[in-house]
Amino acid sequence: MSVIVDRRNLDFILFELLEIERLLGHPRYAAYDRPALQAILDVAQGIAEESFLPIAAEVDANEPRFADGKVVMPDGTAQALRAFAEAGFFALPFNEDIGGLQAPWVVHTAVGGLFTCANTSVTNYAFLTIAAANLLNTFGSSELKRQFLPAMLAGRWFATMCLSEPQAGSSLADITTAAIPRDDGAYRIRGNKMWISGGEQDISENIVHMLLAKIPGGPSGTKGISLFLVPKRLCLPDGSAGRHNNIALAGLNHKMGQRGTTNCLLNFGEDGECLGYLIGEPHRGIEYMFHMMNEARIGVGHAAVMSALGGYLYSAEYARTRAQGRPIGQKDKAQVPIIEHADIRRMLMAQKAAVEGAQALCLYCAMLIDALVTEEDLEEAKAHAALLGLLTPVVKSWPAEHCLEANKWAIQVLGGYGYTRDYPVERLYRDNRLNHIHEGTFGIQGIDLLGRKIVGDRGEALNRLDHLMRRTVAEALREECLREEAERLVEGLEALSSATQVLLSCGDPDRRLANATLYLDGFGHVVIGWMWLKQAIVASRKLALGEVSQQDSNFYDGKIMACRYFARYELPLARAQLALCGSLDTTCLDAPISIFGG
Amino acid sequence: MSVIVDRRNLDFILFELLEIERLLGHPRYAAYDRPALQAILDVAQGIAEESFLPIAAEVDANEPRFADGKVVMPDGTAQALRAFAEAGFFALPFNEDIGGLQAPWVVHTAVGGLFTCANTSVTNYAFLTIAAANLLNTFGSSELKRQFLPAMLAGRWFATMCLSEPQAGSSLADITTAAIPRDDGAYRIRGNKMWISGGEQDISENIVHMLLAKIPGGPSGTKGISLFLVPKRLCLPDGSAGRHNNIALAGLNHKMGQRGTTNCLLNFGEDGECLGYLIGEPHRGIEYMFHMMNEARIGVGHAAVMSALGGYLYSAEYARTRAQGRPIGQKDKAQVPIIEHADIRRMLMAQKAAVEGAQALCLYCAMLIDALVTEEDLEEAKAHAALLGLLTPVVKSWPAEHCLEANKWAIQVLGGYGYTRDYPVERLYRDNRLNHIHEGTFGIQGIDLLGRKIVGDRGEALNRLDHLMRRTVAEALREECLREEAERLVEGLEALSSATQVLLSCGDPDRRLANATLYLDGFGHVVIGWMWLKQAIVASRKLALGEVSQQDSNFYDGKIMACRYFARYELPLARAQLALCGSLDTTCLDAPISIFGG
Repeated sequence: MSVIVDRRNLDFILFELLEIERLLGHPRYAAYDRPALQAILDVAQGIAEESFLPIAAEVDANEPRFADGKVVMPDGTAQALRAFAEAGFFALPFNEDIGGLQAPWVVHTAVGGLFTCANTSVTNYAFLTIAAANLLNTFGSSELKRQFLPAMLAGRWFATMCLSEPQAGSSLADITTAAIPRDDGAYRIRGNKMWISGGEQDISENIVHMLLAKIPGGPSGTKGISLFLVPKRLCLPDGSAGRHNNIALAGLNHKMGQRGTTNCLLNFGEDGECLGYLIGEPHRGIEYMFHMMNEARIGVGHAAVMSALGGYLYSAEYARTRAQGRPIGQKDKAQVPIIEHADIRRMLMAQKAAVEGAQALCLYCAMLIDALVTEEDLEEAKAHAALLGLLTPVVKSWPAEHCLEANKWAIQVLGGYGYTRDYPVERLYRDNRLNHIHEGTFGIQGIDLLGRKIVGDRGEALNRLDHLMRRTVAEALREECLREEAERLVEGLEALSSATQVLLSCGDPDRRLANATLYLDGFGHVVIGWMWLKQAIVASRKLALGEVSQQDSNFYDGKIMACRYFARYELPLARAQLALCGSLDTTCLDAPISIFGG
Repeated sequence: MSVIVDRRNLDFILFELLEIERLLGHPRYAAYDRPALQAILDVAQGIAEESFLPIAAEVDANEPRFADGKVVMPDGTAQALRAFAEAGFFALPFNEDIGGLQAPWVVHTAVGGLFTCANTSVTNYAFLTIAAANLLNTFGSSELKRQFLPAMLAGRWFATMCLSEPQAGSSLADITTAAIPRDDGAYRIRGNKMWISGGEQDISENIVHMLLAKIPGGPSGTKGISLFLVPKRLCLPDGSAGRHNNIALAGLNHKMGQRGTTNCLLNFGEDGECLGYLIGEPHRGIEYMFHMMNEARIGVGHAAVMSALGGYLYSAEYARTRAQGRPIGQKDKAQVPIIEHADIRRMLMAQKAAVEGAQALCLYCAMLIDALVTEEDLEEAKAHAALLGLLTPVVKSWPAEHCLEANKWAIQVLGGYGYTRDYPVERLYRDNRLNHIHEGTFGIQGIDLLGRKIVGDRGEALNRLDHLMRRTVAEALREECLREEAERLVEGLEALSSATQVLLSCGDPDRRLANATLYLDGFGHVVIGWMWLKQAIVASRKLALGEVSQQDSNFYDGKIMACRYFARYELPLARAQLALCGSLDTTCLDAPISIFGG
């Protein structure tokens, strides 16, 4: 049994739920068919299990150290990433014309998930590099791309995102890093960047920083921010890494989890000139970053899912094999595996519902990115984009909240053992706690959803989503066994719709956004309920067709039961929460500051 | 500002809510009045802040190590506990005739909470010793008490609870440690004990293990378990510690949190005779342990509250001082402290509601222990005992679940900073995660509540609690500002009552207990809602009296607002959960094992 992937379930999501083969029919993906995808997943699983998983505990216990201004990395990290590079995974989602493998984004996401589940700390270096390469490829000049992309796609040079500063995390408008134009078109970069994952390491020959800075004299606030490529070592004409570019590691942050990923405070240009190269046009840095935000946020949500999947698979296996206690009223019998106890099954079901529900959503959203690339009808493409924008705060936040909860239950299944570092479940819990914070906090996502995505288009994208969800309900109502589940989702939809109407009519933005985070959370529950109903419909149809193996029959039964669990145990909580949002309650908003703390 | 206690709130709970001065009127507590209690709290706060808090991060980062069969403890631990001992806190709750200070249990609990909040890892050594001394004092022979109690009450000898074994955690019936009678009345102990907190250390001269073992030939299961006192070093006639008693440290468990408390695997009698002394009568060990369980479980619940209080106080202060972002629609203004943002206030309110609600419940239950000691009317005492028994699983579990959630929000308030080990909030979160596991897991507590405490007396104790809660509702309805809150609690009471009726009528124990954990959680919400209504009534009355300072007026306003928050944001979730319990749902119970995992 693998503890990093349930291949049956991944196949189900890709091939049965999302029907990825329809996407593969597009000429862009001519190189891919079902066997090709399986082969890629096989390779990925092999490397993840052989090179990433075995060092996960080690890179957590023995985190990168700061010595003589350099970072000393734990063993194994470099080898694991080399194997990842050699398999071509850095190049997976990029176009063939720049040396990529031109796989769909959803395939890149699914493949990456195997590595994240095995070892999120080490995988981060690769994902940051792919994200930066994507940004460079989309907005960079052909000269910059020529210099930097090949080494990034080969996994020889890694990359980072340098956005935050010590005084400016959620509030990017307040960054102070400056970029002074030089005569030759380059810029002199000066400032400090904080929380830079992978900001320094001793693995790759070079590090390519994608950095936000202000060109003096530009507009104030976020409109005056530009995007720069700032390499650790300058690129020589032959494409190799040349002299150091005056970027100093000022300190490492020591985190609760994800410890194998260095997290750095970097000083740019403090002890000498630090060169940066403008990407795209001046003052459009935030716009460019936002353009890549959907991918990044799906990535964070998917990472949250994968940390929870690791806990779920491990705790399910543990529950099958750990004997403890007896069935109720059978004190004289032999002990039974703890999976026989109802509460253990509840905790496994809670994990399954969160993990497989959110996994479906993440891959659904990843495939929307592919739909955007391949869609030729402009109106359709706009609708896809709006739907993706609407779902992005959900796909970022719901897993960060509820898959963390799943990790909590994984520890609980193992009891005292789960609380020790001899078992992976507590590490996965610690790793996962970050996902609610980076790439925009829970609160930021709530404001993005309600303030920007819903109020911004007066609920138009939401109406489209509502339409999609109701179409699923109609399909479910045709399955005998899913009537109740469909009705529960309708109740959720009604609660969402009522709350949204009230919020849209509210003229006071403070009041409207007062419970935006809870609105996002309730919204997310409805969306995950929808994902479950979609999965249950597929399962029900497969069962009705007959001729499924016993194993498949169990699998499909599990989908229907988890859908039922979600409908009965979870959706009612969302209704209560959405009702609260619809009441425009201001208890927290109105609370005077003086009532908090000692 | 203190980050370990809100003295105003502690005073409120002790003096205004619980009216402890009425208890102090009992002759047993003649030595105590309000100024005396304040003086004790002052001393405790001083020691906790000076000796416990400053080493909290250090004992976490630099945990006890196993070297040459011994434990090497981090610096500062011994000094901190010496200060605790010198102030007399080991002796605080014990009777004067055995050298105790005869303070009420609720005072001992409140005092202990200051240390737990400052440094739960180090405080554990003291609390385990006090718990063991309590057990010895209640059931031990006068000879055993004469030998061991004085050193324990002086804090010279520490103690442990040796219950679990590697193969028997939640299932104590399956322990295999044996106690073979010797001719002189002592026993030879042989076996392994797992998860022993404080099982080995280099701080105290001796360690007194309270150990469960089976005397061969006794009844099977838990009825064959006896309780023994097993010292690390035998007691010499002059009361000093003599030769080693063949207890070997076989290993240390490395935990996610509470790292400063050693957690040991101990071998008893493997390399030579290990002497144990029977406490009380043979085969009554479980009964004795259960007798002490209310105190122990209140202690765990209170520890969960205190870890969350630490996070709440820290994050509230951070939110007041960290400038980031601007009010909605004021992009050109200066940044404001983050406490100005609605979602930050929501997270502080969620913490306040969980922490202060659960703190009130813990101290309420601790005072029920005092009521049991001082009550002369036998019927009343029985009713107190039944109420305490009913509330014990709640006081153990609700804080472990919801105060852990509070710790999660504390991290979230600090954002990226909160995820680093430079700030205490992530440590408090890790520390707190244990409280759902030890002293009976969440699942065990659910079965205790529903299977034993409710079904056991056909809901009689619950009826009494319901009566008490409805009396509070009636009082609240007389306060103009609490009408809605009272009505919401009534809705919660109705939901609890309906669910309980259905569960009591269910003839199938498996089905009845299928959602016992969720029933406990919903039950807990109603009880905490009650605690909030009680607090709000006191606040409302004080405000109506007039003549309160501005500071007090803010404080009382805060109580009313937090009550409102709990009624509006939390109680509806409990209603949904209790409705589910009342539906006798078997989705998880019926789920075949094959659907879980990969």
